[in-house]
Formats: sequence, structure tokens, C-alpha cells
Amino acid sequence: MGKKAFWHSSSHVMAQVLLEIYPKIKLSIGPAIENGFYYDVDPNGHAISENDFPKIESRMLELARQNHNFKMRQVSKKDAIAFYKKEENPYKIELIRNLQDGDITFCNHSNFTDLCRGGHIPNTGLIKAVKILNIAGAYWRGDENSKQLTRVYGISFPKQKELKIYLQKVEEAKKYDHRRLGKEMELFTFSKKVGAGLPLWLPKGTQARERLENFLKKAQQEAGYEQVISPHIGEKGLYVTSGHYEKYGADSFQPIRTPNETEEFFLKPMNCPHHCEIYNSRPWSYRDLPKRYAEFGTVYRYEQSGELHGLTRVRGFTQDDAHIFCMPEQLEDEFTKVINLVLYVFKSLGFEDFTAQISLRDLEKKEKYIGSEENWEKAEKAILNVTKAKGLHCIIEYGEAAFYGPKLDFMVKDALERQWQLGTIQVDYNLPEQFELSYIGADNSPHRPVMIHRAPFGSMERFMALLLEHTKGKLPLWLTPNQCIIIPIGEKNKKYSKKVLKLLKKSEIRTQIDDRNETTGKKIREAEMQKFHFILVVGDKEEEAGTVSVRKHGGKDMGKMKIAEFVDLIEGNDSFRTELFLSS
Amino acid sequence: MGKKAFWHSSSHVMAQVLLEIYPKIKLSIGPAIENGFYYDVDPNGHAISENDFPKIESRMLELARQNHNFKMRQVSKKDAIAFYKKEENPYKIELIRNLQDGDITFCNHSNFTDLCRGGHIPNTGLIKAVKILNIAGAYWRGDENSKQLTRVYGISFPKQKELKIYLQKVEEAKKYDHRRLGKEMELFTFSKKVGAGLPLWLPKGTQARERLENFLKKAQQEAGYEQVISPHIGEKGLYVTSGHYEKYGADSFQPIRTPNETEEFFLKPMNCPHHCEIYNSRPWSYRDLPKRYAEFGTVYRYEQSGELHGLTRVRGFTQDDAHIFCMPEQLEDEFTKVINLVLYVFKSLGFEDFTAQISLRDLEKKEKYIGSEENWEKAEKAILNVTKAKGLHCIIEYGEAAFYGPKLDFMVKDALERQWQLGTIQVDYNLPEQFELSYIGADNSPHRPVMIHRAPFGSMERFMALLLEHTKGKLPLWLTPNQCIIIPIGEKNKKYSKKVLKLLKKSEIRTQIDDRNETTGKKIREAEMQKFHFILVVGDKEEEAGTVSVRKHGGKDMGKMKIAEFVDLIEGNDSFRTELFLSS
Repeated sequence: MGKKAFWHSSSHVMAQVLLEIYPKIKLSIGPAIENGFYYDVDPNGHAISENDFPKIESRMLELARQNHNFKMRQVSKKDAIAFYKKEENPYKIELIRNLQDGDITFCNHSNFTDLCRGGHIPNTGLIKAVKILNIAGAYWRGDENSKQLTRVYGISFPKQKELKIYLQKVEEAKKYDHRRLGKEMELFTFSKKVGAGLPLWLPKGTQARERLENFLKKAQQEAGYEQVISPHIGEKGLYVTSGHYEKYGADSFQPIRTPNETEEFFLKPMNCPHHCEIYNSRPWSYRDLPKRYAEFGTVYRYEQSGELHGLTRVRGFTQDDAHIFCMPEQLEDEFTKVINLVLYVFKSLGFEDFTAQISLRDLEKKEKYIGSEENWEKAEKAILNVTKAKGLHCIIEYGEAAFYGPKLDFMVKDALERQWQLGTIQVDYNLPEQFELSYIGADNSPHRPVMIHRAPFGSMERFMALLLEHTKGKLPLWLTPNQCIIIPIGEKNKKYSKKVLKLLKKSEIRTQIDDRNETTGKKIREAEMQKFHFILVVGDKEEEAGTVSVRKHGGKDMGKMKIAEFVDLIEGNDSFRTELFLSS
Repeated sequence: MGKKAFWHSSSHVMAQVLLEIYPKIKLSIGPAIENGFYYDVDPNGHAISENDFPKIESRMLELARQNHNFKMRQVSKKDAIAFYKKEENPYKIELIRNLQDGDITFCNHSNFTDLCRGGHIPNTGLIKAVKILNIAGAYWRGDENSKQLTRVYGISFPKQKELKIYLQKVEEAKKYDHRRLGKEMELFTFSKKVGAGLPLWLPKGTQARERLENFLKKAQQEAGYEQVISPHIGEKGLYVTSGHYEKYGADSFQPIRTPNETEEFFLKPMNCPHHCEIYNSRPWSYRDLPKRYAEFGTVYRYEQSGELHGLTRVRGFTQDDAHIFCMPEQLEDEFTKVINLVLYVFKSLGFEDFTAQISLRDLEKKEKYIGSEENWEKAEKAILNVTKAKGLHCIIEYGEAAFYGPKLDFMVKDALERQWQLGTIQVDYNLPEQFELSYIGADNSPHRPVMIHRAPFGSMERFMALLLEHTKGKLPLWLTPNQCIIIPIGEKNKKYSKKVLKLLKKSEIRTQIDDRNETTGKKIREAEMQKFHFILVVGDKEEEAGTVSVRKHGGKDMGKMKIAEFVDLIEGNDSFRTELFLSS
């Protein structure tokens, strides 16, 4: 019995109950989703309220216990429309009108009938636990110009215990939601005035982000990349050449006009066209290739404000981008090197559990793709060979390649078992063509290079969000801005605190003092919340003995230590040493 | 005898000659400028050509030798217009119409008459050397919608030798023009497709820029600054609050509209509003101040394409910006610290010769300025006290303060004796007011902080241009991307070259190999042009002995050295050690 069938069936039961409680509502669609199900309804005057959730839940369970079977039956288009005309439901009628006669089925259980494609559990009796989660606004068919409906979310399980576990996980996820952690740890913020979806990185977040960038810069430098810097806007001609211009539609940031109207700029939605122009700024010989241009390039893409979400869905984000320009015969070697880099990055940051997906052409529709058969075969074979040689477990998807080349994507699971799309490596035959890139080969005549786009993190924003949720805010010691906090017990211990601070800073241990007029207990609680790795409490005894009382994050008391002893402890920490290694 | 009178008089003589050679041209205006003079003329069918320059020069000298006196006389408006009606010159007529009757004077010399305010040398005979420099397009009255005229530039001197020295200086300036150096050294480029005034930083330029940024970041970290990162756009509301919105006119980048039209974004022309919002993201106590937010923030400002110039006048540039939020009573102390930082930066980069300008209120028009009398007095006194205490030689300008606060600007002279405006420090009482910034004082009630804007470099682009021209491309050893280049004499020395490269890279000496199939002579010439500090030539002899032949930039032969010896030499270099210090 699939989860999907279970949740889809549950949504029928919920609809039945909603109609009982709010008789005038009009049902539209009610699918199963990744976790649970929802039903979009037109309230038609009713106020659907959270206060009614317990009532909905208990009535659903009551009906479920009556063991109603789900029964499918075929209906003619005419009869189906007639049924919903009687119900005065324009949504179902619109849905039916878009279906083929002969394809229309209704599902019945108890006294409830719904337009439905099927996929059910046999009987309502299997539903033993139900939770109505929340309500939200949703446009009919996702179209902003259509009527706004009310979406009711729920989840159900065959056992009460499973629901309990699920709800605990949700609570956990909320607690470690990166938006909450970002606020508590003072990493980033948003401002209504600056605009939705535009993160402001606070000092501590900037510190952590710069450390991540430096980590990658160092790895990239060793791998032969060169950093470049390009502007955040580009003239229309750039995007006409790249082919992006025709895709700038009404749903994008609109162009930036200039006083004389002869120029028109766009916020850059990607860095590749700029990097192509950097490549094009001088002639190249085969001896110069590959060229690997890297940039932490901030790009801007318009998203509906309703779709924005913390750092994971924003309107401006910084890609850890790079473009490799190489000879076709270098492709396999370069691809291997990129995979090595990506794996090194994942391993360094503790993401050992990932899956990889290879996206190839749809072999039935080869005409959809740009570039020669020979090049495609070479590129696809290169990816397959390399991933095999690396022993990477890959899912292969035919027809998922971009029109300009095949790609390899990496997905990682975070601490809450959720899948995140991270790094991507893409082969591109199109842009070198559009920008007429070339190099002089050993044969002394011009050739077209191949391009690889790649971003191990994806974006700094998204990666920071993932890292926060994965580590539950406790970033690795080398990365965290919050290594140590000193809490003086009394006013008279403040001077000694400063002495300790100075000594720790000398060893480049990131430390701050909490000298507010608050109780030590409150300060410790807040330091725990801010995920300080070490809390150093200093009172009269510590001051006399030249020690600190060390408390590890999570509460473990490590006792009193001489300051030098504590410095040794931190410097001996593997995770701190990584930082030393990284900054060396 | 002023230069201005000399050059203005010369422009009369040039106009006389232009009319002889091109009889149908119409004169408009012909002023003296910083170096020489020009005359804007309507060619009226003539083709004014560079080929005629020698003819113009020799005829000017011939007329000058005839010792004509310059004679001024007053003319009535009516007569003046009648004169130019006869000449069919609409430009002069337009000029005369805008003048008061009684204010109109003509100047005669030889058979030539010109509308002229005066300011001449007595006699043409003083002009002994003339050079017509170039021709360019220029709009009548600088208005793009008016007719395009031809501007003829010239310069003249009382002695032939002075002209020679001037022309040598111009040649020198051309040779060390940062645009030329940037191209030769592959530091940056521009692309027509990306758009005018938007620099693309090439790998070597990016390297140097990042080193400069890291240098300043390190100094700022020690001075208690915190780095932040803010987006490159901001919503209209941000600029309504800051007061910039009303200044966004038809001559700026136009707003970026969004699909739903409820939001409107602007490319950010400065970072301060964003930093105010970062300050505003949480409450502050007097114990937390000062907060010093630093950002290498890229801003965008529209400039006419004709006004763009290399890296010094661009449409997108990165400020080494910071904003200090402090209590009014901390202002003097903070200002001192900023001056110390600026002086440290200048000294580290070899700009010992600078002048400082203090801009204060116009005491007659105090109503023009925002903020209380008490605060202004405090701020102005603070700047005066601090600069005096530091022993800074300052020019004081009354009436040059911004409406929101007094400021201190630094100007440096480059190797060609030209003045550049660099760092700026500004006090601001306005933005804290507009953004309603506050902190809780020791008295437990809210207070308004003061803001200091400051940028020691000004912008990375402008500073890089200045540094290039000042050092004639030979950036300090710690900063240059071009420390060493290895030139293998023969094909068979390439392997040894790579071994040398590896050893130098191990010591973090920035080195590359020139293994093109070119002559050693050509490679050395190009390495000189690219300002490599050390050129290492390796042939059979060097390979056998495990040495390199070291040649310093400028041609000095340092003889053969063991590789370890050369590494010691570089590591012992003070300027290289600065880098070690900086990166530590």
C-alpha cells in the first residue's frame, strides 16, 4: 500500500467532512503530496478556521472507522457535468471539460462522490491517525489572476504512533529551521525596506560565508582555477547573443532603461555570458587550455513573493560558479577533476550521504538538442565513464539533459532526511557556438572549445541554509563564528574576562564576552541557543587560579582548565585544525 | 603673464588660421583649458583634417611673428549682432543675445575680430611654439540635442623647449595610462556586449584586487570593523526613506519593475541605506557601540558614455565602504581612528604625498544644513581637533560640507604630478534621522547615533587605476600578479622550467612560464612590458648547474643563482615580506 494512495484516500475523507461542516464550500482538487495531502476549496462564504481542526480530525476518524470501501466507476462527460451542475461547482466542471470522454471516473465512499483518477486504499478503516496541519491561500490552477481558494493541509497514518513520530520530526525541523537559527545566531536578516527575498548578511553570517568561500577558493586555486570579477548587469546585446534575451518574459525582473534609451541593461541571472566575454577578450592557443574562470557571482532572478523562503528561495543569490573552457579531447579529464573537487567539498563538510543523477538525451528526440552527434556521444560517454570509474552510484535519466548538453547533479540528505539539490556539473556546446569562442589548435587552425558549468555548493545562500539545518546550527568548529563565549559571573570578573579574551584572540580563537547585566543562567541558555561550541564561565575562583570553567555545547561540564590548557584543547581539535589548514 | 591669457590668445590666432584655411567654417567658442586651448567650430562642409595640423601650426607661428597687438573694444549689442549677421554665424549671435547690452566686447588682432571677454597677452609675438593636438566631436553648448561641432585642441608656449618637455610628459602619460597597462598586463577588459563602463576583471587583475581587499580587510578587522554583505538592488521604500528617491531623475539608471508592478527596485548607488537597515535589524545598547559595518559593496551609477574613462569613470564600481554608528560623544575618537586607518593605508601603498581638505558649513547660511547647532559644532570641532593633533596639513573650505555633515577628503599626487581625489570621511546626522536609528543609553532611554561614512581607497577601480599610473605598472612585489616569469631558451629546457616553477610556487612566489615558440629576445621584451619583477632565463648551462639567470625588471642582470638562493632573495625582500605579513 503506497503512501500516495493512503493520503489521496484520506483527502477524500477530509473533503467529505469539510462538506459536512461547511456545506456551501466548493471542492476543486485534493492530491497527495510528499508529506500528507491537501484539498483546495472555495469557502464560498464560510470561514474555515483552525479552531475547527479537532472537530475535522475526530469526524474523519469516526467516518474512517465505519469501514467504507472506495469504489471507482466510469462516467460519461455529460453525466459528470450534469452531476456538478447540480452541485453548482464550476471548478469540477472546468476540470471535466478538459478531459476526454471515456477517461472520466468518479470515486465513491460512504455518501461521498468525487471526480477522481483513482489510486486508493481499499477501505477507510485503514486510516487510524489524522492531523489537520494548516490552512493557506492558493490560486485556482496556480494562476494569480484566478480566484483565491483555501488550501487545507492534513496528514494521516495507519498507526497513531507513526503520527506521533512524524509530528516530533516536524517540531524538530521547526526548531532547526535555518530561518530561526539565522535569527537566533544573528547570521542574516531580511528588511521590508530593502525588499523581499534579498538577504542582508550580518557580521557573523558574513564571517562564516567568507570562510566557506575561502575554503572553496583555496581548493579551486589548487585545481587550477582563476578568479575573475564581472558586473551584476549586462547590456541587452549580451543576452541576445547568449539566447537568454528571448526568455526574459513578463515574469522576470524588467530591463533597466537608461537616459538616452539607446542602451538597455538586465540584472544578470547567470554568470556564463560574462565569462564567455572574458574568454573572448584575447586569442587563445591549444597550449593555454583549459581556462577555468571562477567567480562568486551574485545573480538576480525574480520569484513571486509567495514563493520566497528564507535563504533557500531568494531573489538574489551568490553562485560558487565557474566555467571551464577546454578542448573536446580534454572533456573527460576535466569532468573527472570537477567531480573530484565536488566530492572533496562534500566530504570536507560532512555530506557523505548523497545521490548523483546523470541527465542524458532523449534518444527518440535527438533533434531537440544542439551540437553534433559525435560531441554528444563523447560527452555522454565521458560522464558515464567517469562516474563509473569513480564508483559513484548514479541514477540515469534519459531526456533530462539540457538542450545544450548532458549534466550530472548531486543531491544530499540533511539531518532530517530531506533531499536537497546541491552541486551541478553541466556540459555546454551551445554558448561556445553563440559567442563564437575559439582557440588555435596544434594544426594551426581555429577550433571551438567546449564549456563546463559547475557549482559545488549551488549557491552560498542555499548551502548555508542546508548546512545550518544539517548541523542543527552547530556549524563545524573551523567554520562557526561562535567558537567561544566568556561569561563573567560578577561585575568584578569583567576585567579578568577581557584578559582571557585577549589571550584566546591571540590564538585566533573566535571569542566574545557576554557582559550584560543578566543572570549567569540566562546567559548560558542564550549561549546554548546561539550554538557556541564552548562556554567559559569565570568567577572569583577561576580568576584566582588563572583558569576558566569550560562547558561544551549541549551541557557537558569539562571542569576548570588553565587558559593555555584550553587553547591546547581547541588547537588539538581536528575540526579547528581544518581551519588552520584552510587558512594557511 | 598667466598661462590662461597665453592660451586664450593662442586660440584667437588658431581661429584666424582656421578661417584662412577653411573659409566657410563658423566659429563658436574657444577657451583656454588646463593644458592648452580649443576652439569649437561648425565645419559647414569643410573636412578639418589631421593632415592640415602642420600647416596650421606654421601659419600660426608666421602670424605670431608679425607681432600683432590684441586690442579690446566695447560694442553695442545691435552692432555686435549686425557684425555676425554679416558673417552668417548663428553661434555668436546666440551668445550675444544672452549677454547684457554694455557687457559686449570684441577683440582684434591683425585682421581678425572675435567676440571676447578679454584676458590676453599684449602681443602675438610672445607665442614661439605651437602644437595642434587633436580634433574631436563636441555638441554646441554641450547639449546632445544640439548640432555636433568639431573641437580643435592645441597648446602653445613662449619657448620651443617648453613644448618639447610638455610633449614628452604627454607621451610618458600615454605610456603609463592605466588603460594601456591594464591591457598589456591583462588586468581588466571591457566588452561592448557586456556594456560600456562595466569592467571585467581578468584573473591577474582579480588577484591584485583581492590582495588589496584582503590587506584592507585585515587592517579593518584589527580596527574593530565587521564585514557585512548586502544586495545590489533595493526596493523603492528604502530610497524613499533615505531621501535618495527624489534624486533619481531622468539622468539615472531607470527603476527595475517587477511582474506584479507592486514593487519597484533600483540598482544601489550607495551602500549606506542597506547598512542602516542592518543596524536596524535589532535593538542596541550604548555598550554595543560603536558598530562598524564594512563592505566591499559594488554600486551602479549611470554616466554618459562619452564621459566614461577606463577604470576612473565607470558605471559600476566597488567601494571599500564602511559605516560607523556611534554615540555623539564617541565621534572624535572614532574620527581619529578612521584617520589613523587611512594614513596607514596610504603609507603602506607608498602615497606619502597627499593633501587633506576639511569641508565645513557656510556659516552665513546655517539654515541649509540638517542637525542641531550643538552637533555641528561638536563634529566640526572634532575634525579640526583631530587633524591638528595628527599634524595633518589641511585646507579648510567653508560652505563645502554636505548638507548632512562636515567631511575630510584626501587628495594624492601620482608619479605624473596629477592630483587624484581618494579617501573620504564624512559625518552624517541625516540618515540616522531618516532611518530612525537608535540605541538605549546609560540613562535607559533611546538616543540617536551619529554615522560616519568612510572609504580609504574610494573605489577599487579608481584606486587600481591610480596605483597603476603611480607605479607605472610596476605594482609592489607583494601586490603584483607578475612576480616572476621563467623563459626556457630551448624546447629541451621546458622540463627544467617546470621544475623551477614548482619550487617557486612551493614558496608561494607567483610565477609563470613563457613556453611559446618565440625568440628569447621577444619574450624578454614582453615580460618587461608586463612588468614582471624578475625574469628567469633558463638554458642548458642553467639546467646543468641547477641555477637560473636572473634579470630584474628594467634590465639589470643579477647573474646566475641557485634556485634556493633566488627564493631567499625574494623572501628577504621587504616588499615581499609585507605580503607574508599581510597574509598571515
